[in-house]
Order: sequence, then C-alpha cells, then structure tokens
Amino acid sequence: MTDSATTPEAARHSTPLKLRDVTVTDAFWHTEQELVRTAVLPFQWNALNDNVPGAAPSYCMHNFKAAAAQNARKNTEGKQFVPPAYSYRGFESKPEDPAHPDPDKFYGFVFQDTDFSKWVEAVGYSLAHHPDAELEATADKAIDIVCAAQLDNGYLDTYYILNGMDRAFHNLRWHHELYCLGHLIEGAIAYYEGTGKDKLLKAAERFADYTAEYFGPNEGQCKGYPGHEIAEMALARLAGVTGDRKYLDLAKFFIDERGTEPNYFRYEGERDKKDGSADTDWRFDYPYAQAHEPVREQTEAVGHAVRAGYLYSGMAAVARMTDDPTLAKACENLWRNIVDKKLYVTGGIGGTREGEAFSYNYDLPNDSAYSESCAAISLAFFARRMLELDPKAEYADVMELALYNTTLAGMALDGKSFFYVNPLEVNPYACHKDRRLDHVKPVRQKWFGCACCPPNIARIVESVQEYAYTVSDDASTLYTHLYMGGEAKAALGGMPVRLSVDADLPWHGDGSVVVHLGEDSDGVSGRFTLAFRLPGWAGAQEATAAAISATGESPEADGSPRITRDVRDGYLYLTGEWRDGDIVSFDFPMPVRMLKANPLVREDVGKVAFTRGPITFCAEERDNGANLHLLHADVDAILADPGSIKVEDFDFRAGAKGIDDQGQGEVDQVTRHMVRLEVPAWREVVPAAVPAGDSADVPAFSPLYAQYAPAERESVTATLIPYFAWANRGENEMTVFLHD
Amino acid sequence: MTDSATTPEAARHSTPLKLRDVTVTDAFWHTEQELVRTAVLPFQWNALNDNVPGAAPSYCMHNFKAAAAQNARKNTEGKQFVPPAYSYRGFESKPEDPAHPDPDKFYGFVFQDTDFSKWVEAVGYSLAHHPDAELEATADKAIDIVCAAQLDNGYLDTYYILNGMDRAFHNLRWHHELYCLGHLIEGAIAYYEGTGKDKLLKAAERFADYTAEYFGPNEGQCKGYPGHEIAEMALARLAGVTGDRKYLDLAKFFIDERGTEPNYFRYEGERDKKDGSADTDWRFDYPYAQAHEPVREQTEAVGHAVRAGYLYSGMAAVARMTDDPTLAKACENLWRNIVDKKLYVTGGIGGTREGEAFSYNYDLPNDSAYSESCAAISLAFFARRMLELDPKAEYADVMELALYNTTLAGMALDGKSFFYVNPLEVNPYACHKDRRLDHVKPVRQKWFGCACCPPNIARIVESVQEYAYTVSDDASTLYTHLYMGGEAKAALGGMPVRLSVDADLPWHGDGSVVVHLGEDSDGVSGRFTLAFRLPGWAGAQEATAAAISATGESPEADGSPRITRDVRDGYLYLTGEWRDGDIVSFDFPMPVRMLKANPLVREDVGKVAFTRGPITFCAEERDNGANLHLLHADVDAILADPGSIKVEDFDFRAGAKGIDDQGQGEVDQVTRHMVRLEVPAWREVVPAAVPAGDSADVPAFSPLYAQYAPAERESVTATLIPYFAWANRGENEMTVFLHD
Repeated sequence: MTDSATTPEAARHSTPLKLRDVTVTDAFWHTEQELVRTAVLPFQWNALNDNVPGAAPSYCMHNFKAAAAQNARKNTEGKQFVPPAYSYRGFESKPEDPAHPDPDKFYGFVFQDTDFSKWVEAVGYSLAHHPDAELEATADKAIDIVCAAQLDNGYLDTYYILNGMDRAFHNLRWHHELYCLGHLIEGAIAYYEGTGKDKLLKAAERFADYTAEYFGPNEGQCKGYPGHEIAEMALARLAGVTGDRKYLDLAKFFIDERGTEPNYFRYEGERDKKDGSADTDWRFDYPYAQAHEPVREQTEAVGHAVRAGYLYSGMAAVARMTDDPTLAKACENLWRNIVDKKLYVTGGIGGTREGEAFSYNYDLPNDSAYSESCAAISLAFFARRMLELDPKAEYADVMELALYNTTLAGMALDGKSFFYVNPLEVNPYACHKDRRLDHVKPVRQKWFGCACCPPNIARIVESVQEYAYTVSDDASTLYTHLYMGGEAKAALGGMPVRLSVDADLPWHGDGSVVVHLGEDSDGVSGRFTLAFRLPGWAGAQEATAAAISATGESPEADGSPRITRDVRDGYLYLTGEWRDGDIVSFDFPMPVRMLKANPLVREDVGKVAFTRGPITFCAEERDNGANLHLLHADVDAILADPGSIKVEDFDFRAGAKGIDDQGQGEVDQVTRHMVRLEVPAWREVVPAAVPAGDSADVPAFSPLYAQYAPAERESVTATLIPYFAWANRGENEMTVFLHD
Repeated sequence: MTDSATTPEAARHSTPLKLRDVTVTDAFWHTEQELVRTAVLPFQWNALNDNVPGAAPSYCMHNFKAAAAQNARKNTEGKQFVPPAYSYRGFESKPEDPAHPDPDKFYGFVFQDTDFSKWVEAVGYSLAHHPDAELEATADKAIDIVCAAQLDNGYLDTYYILNGMDRAFHNLRWHHELYCLGHLIEGAIAYYEGTGKDKLLKAAERFADYTAEYFGPNEGQCKGYPGHEIAEMALARLAGVTGDRKYLDLAKFFIDERGTEPNYFRYEGERDKKDGSADTDWRFDYPYAQAHEPVREQTEAVGHAVRAGYLYSGMAAVARMTDDPTLAKACENLWRNIVDKKLYVTGGIGGTREGEAFSYNYDLPNDSAYSESCAAISLAFFARRMLELDPKAEYADVMELALYNTTLAGMALDGKSFFYVNPLEVNPYACHKDRRLDHVKPVRQKWFGCACCPPNIARIVESVQEYAYTVSDDASTLYTHLYMGGEAKAALGGMPVRLSVDADLPWHGDGSVVVHLGEDSDGVSGRFTLAFRLPGWAGAQEATAAAISATGESPEADGSPRITRDVRDGYLYLTGEWRDGDIVSFDFPMPVRMLKANPLVREDVGKVAFTRGPITFCAEERDNGANLHLLHADVDAILADPGSIKVEDFDFRAGAKGIDDQGQGEVDQVTRHMVRLEVPAWREVVPAAVPAGDSADVPAFSPLYAQYAPAERESVTATLIPYFAWANRGENEMTVFLHD
C-alpha cells in the first residue's frame, strides 16, 4: 500500500469527465434517464409555465416575462422610467385573484427563478446525449425570455427586479438571491455543455460579475454571503468552465467570510430592526444556515441539510482548486461527522423536520425522518467533490448509497410523482392521524409549490455520468468510481482512451471494461493508470481487489506483466503500458449484508437492516402484511446460514390507481427488473382480537399491559424490495429496519 | 358471583365520604399532604400575588383587585359610570411596563382567575384536617377581594369585567369563562366543606345562577357550552352540595348540547368572522375540545386530554345523578378506549404535544409523551366518578395508578418544583438539542406562567381522602377503594361506623381495618356491608379475596358466620351483623410484575416495564449509568426465577443543587422511605470508543452501520426506583421501559 499523503496533488486531485464524453447505457440508469427525459422534463416545463391543472402555479416564467416587459418599458421610456420602490409581499406571494395574476407583478416564492434554472440544467444534460430539436427550441425561447429580464448591470433575480431593486442584496438571510445566482450558473453551464450554446452562460457570467463587484473583501464591498448556499459550488464550477479566477475568488470569499465575527447575518438583522425595514424576523438561527462559526472551525454538520450539503460541496471544490489544506481538513471533519453519526442507511441525511435539518449526533429516527431527497442529492454532490479532492472509496460508497437509494426513492417508477421526505418507516395510519408526522407522506405527491426535489432529482439523474469517472489533474489516471454500463472517453498522457463498460449494477457485481486506445482500432498502446473503486459492500479491500483482473497483468515474454497493481484507499490502481483491446474483468461479491446500527443510535436498538451491493432494502405491507413492527428477522437462522436469505431476480410490477382525489399516490403500470430478498423471519402472533368498537380504526384487543411472556412466533419469510421502489403500489406500511 | 346489573342503583351508586369524615395518617400520604401544606400552598399564594422573585407574575389577585375597584367606582359613580367597551388584548396580556402594571387593567391569561380558585380549593381541603388560623385568615381576605369583584348580576370573571362585558360569553371556544366558573365552584365547595364558611360558595352560586339564566334549552337562552370543560363536573357537585337541581340541569344541558348540530362553536366562529369581531382564529378544532359529535356518540377519547378528562368526569357524575343509561354507556365506551388503547403504564394520558392531546389508538411514545400531570389528575377524577356510578375494581386500579405515579411525579420530593409533562423516557441531551422535545423537561421547573399543574397537584393531594371511600346511596355499603392508613366515618343503615385503617401502601400489602360502631365503644352491632377492593396488581380476584378475612367470618355458636362474603366486579363484599371491634385483616400479595405492552403499541415492541403494587418503576442514569437504551432486562433469568428480582426497602435520598441559573432542577435534601427493585439485567457492551472529535458531545465510535452480530452482554443488576421519584437527583437519563 502506498501512502496517499505522498501522492502529488496533481495526481490526487481529479475532475469529472466532460458530460458528452460519458454515456450510460445500462438498463438501470438508461431507464431512469428516460423517465426523466420523457416524463419529468415536459411536466416540469408545464409546471413552470403554470400549465398543470390542479397544481399550485409556479409563476416562474410569468416572473421572467414580467421582468422582461419591465426592462422593455425602461428602454422605451428612458429617463421617464420609474423603477418600483421595494415592497415586501411575503416569502411567498400569491395573486389576489388567482384567475387573473397581474402581468407586472412577482408571484411565488422568493426563489422561484430557480425553477427555470433547475429545469434548464436537466435539459442541458439531457440534450448532451439525446438530441431533441423541439426541446432545445423550447429551451432557447425560455432562455431568451430569461435573458431579456436581466438588468443592464447584469443583475438577474426577478424578485427584486419586480419588487424593487433598492433592497436587492439586503436580506441575504432569507431572500435567496445568491441561491438564484448559483442555480442560474449551474443551469447555464449544463446548457452550454449540453448544446454548446453560451447565451445563458454569458448572462450567468454577467450576474456573477455584478455579484463579484458587490461582494468582496475590499472597502465598500458587502461582506455578506448566501443565506441558502449553492453559489459557492456554482461559482467554483464557473471558474473551471471559464478559466476566470474571479469566480473562484468570490466562492472563496463567501466561504471564508461565513460565520466570522462580526456575524454578517446578525449585522443585517440588527440593521433591519433598527431602521424598521425588516421584511422578516430580524433574528436568525445561525446554525440553521451554517453561519454560527467560521467554516474551518465547524466539525459538526448542523442546520438545514440541503444548505449544509451545498456549502460543504462548495468548500470541497474550493479546497481542491485553491490547494487549501485547512479547508480540506474542515471538509473531512464534517464528512466524518455525517458518515459516522448522521447518515441514514438509505444514504439520506436530515433527521429532523425542525428546520429540515440534521438532528443531534446519532439521532436518526425512522418514522419521523426528514431525509429530504434534495439533501441526499447534496450529499452526492459533496461526496463527488471529496473524491475529486482525494480519491478514497468511502466517498464513492456514500455517493453511491445516496444515488441509488434516497435520491431515486424521491421519484415514482413512472416518473410522475415525488417525495420530498424519505422516511425509513411508514405507518400510513399514523401519517394521517399524527400532526407530528405532517411532513411524512405515505405516497408520492404530484408536484409541489416549492418544487425543489423533483427538478433536483431530474438534474442529478440526467448527469449521473459525472459521478462515475474522474480524471486526475495530471492526466495520468482515470478513476472509475461507479460501475455503469456505457462508454467513457478521456485523454490520458495525451492518448485518447475510451472505456467500454459492460455492467449490471446494482443487481449483479460482474462485468468488464474494454480499453480502446487512439483514434484507430488496432495496435496502439499507452502508459497510464486505470483506477477502479473497490466497493465497500463487496467486502475486504484485498479480496475485492482480487475480483478485478486485467489482461495485461499476465507475465509477458520477459516474465513481467505489462500492467501492475496497487491498492490504496479503496482503489485498485492498474498501471502500465495499456494496449488497445485490453480487458479489465470484474466480478464483485455481492453478499446480502444484515446490518445493525451503532448502539448509540437509540432508534435502532434491536433492529437490523438488509443491503446488497449499493441497494438498501425494505419491507412493504403489500408483500408482508400489516403491522410490520411485528415482523422480526430471524437473526439466529441467518447467522447460522447466511445462505438462507434468497436473492431473486424478478419483475417488479408498479402501479396504483389514484388513491385520493388529487391523484396523490397514483402510479402508472410499470414493470422493472429488480432483485428482491427472501429473508427468514418470524411474526409475533397477535392474540385473537376482541371485536373492535365502532370507533376503532385498528383491530382492538385488551389488555393494554399484560404479564410478560415470550412472544408466540410464527415462522414466515419476509420479502424485501429495494428501498427506492417503495410506495409504488399504493399506500401501505413500509420499514427499512426489522426488529431482530 | 352476583351480577352487578341486578343490583339496584341505590346500592350500586355511591358517593365519597365527607372530607372531614376521613383522615389519612399513613406515612406515605401524610408526607405528601404535608409537602403541599407547608411548601406548595404558601408558594402558590405568593405566586398569585406576584411575589415570587424571578417567576412570571400571575396577576391573579391584581385582576380581582382591579375588578373590585371598578365595582366600587360603579357604586360611587352610579349612572355616571361608563363600563369598559370590550377590547381584545391577547390570550395572554402583559403590562407594557412590567414594573408598573396599570392597576385598572386585566393581565395574564384569560383564565387567570382560576389560580385563586385552585389555591382556595387546596386550602379548603387542608383546613379540613389541619386547622391553621393564619392561613384561614389569609384565605378569608382573599375571598373578600374576589367577592368584591363580582358584578351585581352575579357574573364573576375578571377578564370580561375589566375588558368589557359586552363580549362576555361570546368566545366560548377560547375564553374560558365557564372554566373559571367551574374552578370557582370547586374552590368554593372545598372551602365551605373545609371551614363551614359559605361566603365564597354563595358567590359561586350567584355566578352559577347567572350562567343558568344565560344558557339553556329555552328560547332566548344561549346554546353554547364550555370551550374548556370543568363546569359540568363542578355544577353536578354543586347540585349535590346545595340540593339545587338547577345546577344539575345546567351541567346536563352543557353535556347534552356538546357536539350537536348545528355546532355551536362553528356558529360562534362564523358569526365572529362575519361581523369581523373575532378575537381569535374563527376556525376551531372541534375534536380538540370534544365538540365534534354528540357526547353519547363519542367512543374514542380525543383532543386535549385535560379537557377530555374533565368532560368525562362531568358526564359520569351527571349519568349517576340523573340515572341516564345512555350517558353512562358513553362513559364506559370512552373509558374502555382510554384504558385499552391510550393509557400509559404510569397512569398518564395524552400521547402527543400537538394539542396536548390524546394521540391515535395505541400511539404511546415514551420520549415525546405529553402525559400532563393535570391529565392524570383528570383521569383520577373520571375514574372516581365511574366508581360512584358502578363499583368495579378496574376503575380503582386506574385511579390508583394515576394517583401514585404520574400525579405525584409532577411534584419534586421537596414540593418546590413541578413537571407539566411526564415522559416515560428522557435523554436530557436530546431534550436540550431537539426542538421536537421542547415540551419535555429533564428536570422540574419552579413554577409556570400558565400554572395549571402545580395547583392541580395540590388540590388532589389535599383531598386524596375522597378517593379512598364511597358510601352507597342506600347507605348499606361502605366501599374501600384505596387502602390508606387513617380513619373513615360513615353512617351505615343509621349506625355510625368508624373504620381505623392500618396500612403501609404502596410499599407493603398487609394491614388491618378495625370496625368501630356507635358512639360508645362496646357492645354495639349493626347490619351492613363493608366492600373491599381487590387490587388488580395483587393477582386473580378469588385469590386476592382470600387475602382478606374478617373476624366475624368464623362460624358462630349456631354454626354459621355473622359475616358472609361475596366477590363481584373486583370487590369483596362482607355483609352481616358487624360488631364493634371487628377486625378485617388483609395481606395482599404484591408480586413484581414484568409487563409488556399490547403488541399494537409499536413504541414498546421488545420492551418491558416493571410494577409492584400500585407503583410503576423506572431506571435512572444515577443508579444505572448512562445510555439506558443499552440496559436490557434479563427476561430469561426473570422468567426462570421470578424471585431473582429483589425488592428492597431503602431510604431514597433526594437532593440536587440548582442545575441552571434559574434553579430549575434544584431539589432540597430530602430522605423518603421507598422500595426499589434490583432486577437481573445485561448491558450491551459498546466497542472501545474512538477518540471523539472536538465537536462530539457524546462518545464517538465508528462505523455507524456494521455487520450484525449478537450484542456482547455484560451481566448487571438494574436498580429501579418508583417513577414518581425520578428527577430528584439532578438532570439524568430515565426510562420506564427496558429493552428485553
């Protein structure tokens, strides 16, 4: 083993391959991407144009059009034009008469512009691999409208353009302008990379330029930073795309300034309180926005989980791009805290609905979890940037867990309904009865007024390629982090390299990588390293490394192999003189793992969860009957014979008729190939029920407390399905953890 | 066994003995009553006079004085006097300058008058047994002030007297006037019964008379009913004390009208919305106040638990006094629902903080329980009235559970701090970190602005005698429901009977009752029945009945015994020719019971709780170390040998220095005799901890998820103390349920 600390940064640091240089064609991800392309993107476009019957209007494009019209008036009227003076009309403002919104007014949430940005980001990713002239024309027209809304000075947030620019950048705690900037940059880059068109990118740059003038360390510049982070990671990415250091400096400024004293958010609140102009409560929960102390001193992940994930992603990006060891160390500390104390076994984060936030250490409630889809996505963002900083398999393990489980659970198998909140245990009866579970929905919802999760799922699914590979800064090493069937192109040591990957994750662990070199097909060779992740779920690293072999590893005529191997930090590094046509084969063990949580997780005492490969499983009432809390894994039988758990390929049939009058929980009939687990289990036999009274919603029997006796056990087999597939067959109970 | 249904109502119905006719002198209750008398009552008097440094002012006596002064002005000014026109100043109104409250204004909560009523109620009970001229003089002066505040028409609620009578009885949903009436009646009766003085009673009657004119079934009368119930039970009691049927009719009207259509609360809200005069949100959560359907149709206990308990108590009282079988049946249905599906093993009720309410069936969370002290008290009220309606031991079992556990847990062992909320599991770390647990305090608080629980504990402790005995309406039977050392006097069949009870509950199950007859001491005899409850905790009824024997049960010279026995509904009826000096001996088995909850209680799967006699036990960190969730009862060892649990008499030493800057959690050094349990147990051994990061508040070790293996067990002995004694040694973890 080589100590990674001795590896030069140029070899350790890496960045994703260009989106157009990677394709994913395997059955699993192709299906997901097609779902997004065919179901989510068109729906989303209708949503941001307020064309979804029954759904709350977004007013997103309405606002851009209103701002564009105002801009046009300004140009026509010249000095006669009187810009609106700021008035606060609420965090979400709605037309007095919903049937006749004022065409000149801003409506919706303060961050409503991001609906467009997230949509265009997913569109950009989609177009990269799936040309669609109609979609592209639609996007171009939308971009025209958005760009027409931009002020001459580059500012582009319709909330303040329409409500009054005199208070722009005056409520950074709550008003999300910098969040809008961040999303605009992300969307613009994606559209640029997907289509080559830079109109939106230029607009984003101009808004970023304006912002870089406004904020900064120099006298007269504002010392604030985003209330809802994302600008940091977006600006870093913009610096990478444009090569303009200014954007990286601004990202770094936001990060360096955050949580320092005097606290900017406190200053802002006290200023507003003093001059009586506070839109919102002048007080602020600093940890909620990770602004309670300088980021380099933060060692516990706290506050709003999505904000946190975006901030940490930005920190990791800036740490890599500026070679900042103290910032990298802070990222590692926060990562450790999340992974050791605050991560759900489904890859979700955010234990409490209070502030949609991380709860305290080891507090991971199953039924009242928040575990927002967006938070899992933000964790994947963070994990990939940690990989870019330092390739360690643990980062990829967690990234994969977040992608395959909570992220995908956010979307129904027909791509038409979505979860915000991803609990690990659901009793629909409780969700309907218990206001403490107001946030937990037992079935997916069609769309949300505050539509952050569906478009976030769309953008990460359409760009999942970017999570599979990175190439080192010195172009010596191509990392394969996730095994996805498809192709990846990179230039390694000046040599064009193309990998053709055959894989069947997440269901089977075997596959192969064919190495193509050069422009032609024969006789080319080159010296470089292919690094392959050793998935944590496959077992011990050395054994897993042995599950990978390359044709060039056999001794040549001179007795030594062309390709040699080295294992470090959970990666197998295969280095040497690669030849066109070389094949790397892998066959990772994919044992079913019966996991228990750290004993400090009080919620999970006496419980087990089952995983296999990157997939976390769950039990649904549909397969196992009601009262899942009485279903126990037969841990003794499983320990005695791990093979007693059956792994079965099967066709999962999704589909549910509209289960309420808004069609919430409705899923089209869809069949998806999956793997299920048949697990030895037992059920606690419930004594014969006393006939329920009229009022009883559940079977009743007394007494409520009785002398303890060991439970009467009925042997059964528990059927576990992938967590991401739950709630696709109507409303029913679900649990990830089973009692032991 | 005799079928109770065949027993005439005059024999089945019973009422408590007069307060002055029962004394409780055993160590346990005497100590509790002395605590209340010496610590709580003086403190409470200071509180309602705003004389407690550091505590939020009550403004209770301030308001009565202000109203009295206004009355005086009215009398002086005559027709010149202009009464205040109503203005709403909030559910709780505070002076703009706390140092200088306006002497003419109302402050505090809308129900602040009840602070006085609850205090004077406890004072009345106390004076019945413990004459105290100074206390009585204080109370008399307070009563003078209160009576001076009463309007000429009898109305007496300072909130509307001071804020404007034009809106009196116009917001029954929220403004608690009828709640104030109810508490005033309860207080007035107690003071009358304790001292023989009827000034306050007359005032209460006049307010009740005014109310009985205002509300009722006749045309022109208001069809409303209390938003917060208690008037129903109080009016029924007033009817009993005065013999005036009018009060019973009003109680019955409130009960009959409740929840019928058109719903009065809906009418009230819509009226206010229409005329724009709504003080509060015009909408209303009908189940919250048990107003969602007619009470006779209600079969599930829902809504605010204290409101519910008071309503059900009133229903049971009216059912008995009006011989109303449909109302009695409704009481039984609601009772069954509570006892079979919604009762904590500590005698607490109210599973959710949302509305301080009953949660759904079988939802009994331990750590986030509400289980308000007042709610347990209201359950004791309800249980006693069910006993009065129909003597069944189950009612007494639950009443006893509520009294000995949650009610007493509400007060520290020094009588100086109090719990509102009585969780069954506390991790102080979580209480401090988790906003979802804002309502759960790990230590008792000094006093509350909304001071319902401390005075409620005071009044029930000072009147606990009333829960021990009832006498049947036909004066044939004296019921002993609770075994308390002391004396009880009753007239049975015209004969003065006095029981001298020697008992050592809740710690030991043996004792005796000496029967004294007549005015003289010798040679008197009389025919009547003494009925003794067979406690559910002692085991099967027949066996428990055998633990009671009376001297008169031996065959006489003629071969037949003077006293014969009959067991029904959990009572042993000893009937015959009693002689002065007869002794009834009892020696109830008091096994430690290891209980499990009904399997439908998801929270308690895999857990056990321990009780002995009426006492529910708990484990505290102080005795058992931290991380109580890793402490398991060794159920196999206990099942194999129930005697492996040791029952130990010991001296519990309470005491904690002020643990925060407000002295919350401070307890004086107090020693109390108790019984503790030493229970075979094991602890899950936690792997060697990885050194915690700077941020870690708890010991850290990874990984968060690991391959399942049976827990490494360390044999230990768990020390369990009575639940009511928890949190008397500073802040620490506690749990009632242990994992099995």
